[in-house]
Amino acid sequence: MTLEKTTRMNYLFDFYQSLLTSKQKSYMSLYYLDDFSLGEIAEEYHVSRQAVYDNIKRTEAMLEQYEEKLLLFKKFQERKKIFEELRKLTDGQPEAESLIDALEKLD
Amino acid sequence: MTLEKTTRMNYLFDFYQSLLTSKQKSYMSLYYLDDFSLGEIAEEYHVSRQAVYDNIKRTEAMLEQYEEKLLLFKKFQERKKIFEELRKLTDGQPEAESLIDALEKLD
Repeated sequence: MTLEKTTRMNYLFDFYQSLLTSKQKSYMSLYYLDDFSLGEIAEEYHVSRQAVYDNIKRTEAMLEQYEEKLLLFKKFQERKKIFEELRKLTDGQPEAESLIDALEKLD
Repeated sequence: MTLEKTTRMNYLFDFYQSLLTSKQKSYMSLYYLDDFSLGEIAEEYHVSRQAVYDNIKRTEAMLEQYEEKLLLFKKFQERKKIFEELRKLTDGQPEAESLIDALEKLD
């Protein structure tokens, strides 16, 4: 899997995991965050490797559909750029820094 | 219906309408944005007033569930306050204003 895809899935999972079932969350978290193989997850849950694969593929598609509809990741990336420009502009002024920090925490 | 509830539903609808079916969107939009009565919507769609009522109640509950999970409205309100403070702090400096405008547009 490409690094780019892994990074994207990590972000989408982060933004939309509250909309997934607990099984979906477990598989995705083991696969993408803890770097388990499909076979290891299958063993852990006493199911077939194919079942894990299908579940993860479906979850990935769901995450992409949520992103298409809600654009949380895209907006996050756009905000990030603007925060950088704002930080440059306010040039380390502590009050501005702490307000921008507060905004970043909301993402 | 209280003004507070109407305002809240308008916002939740705005944030999560992409996750609703087209029928849900139509009813909610007529009821909350165009101020149609349940009876008027029922007539328009050739269904019973009760069917419209049930659909709208279910949609309202779905919107509240999405908000519980994703907190888009809550975060929007928190950002709004911080934008105000940032505007005061940067005191009408045009470059800062336009960056804050760009952030607000992303909400």
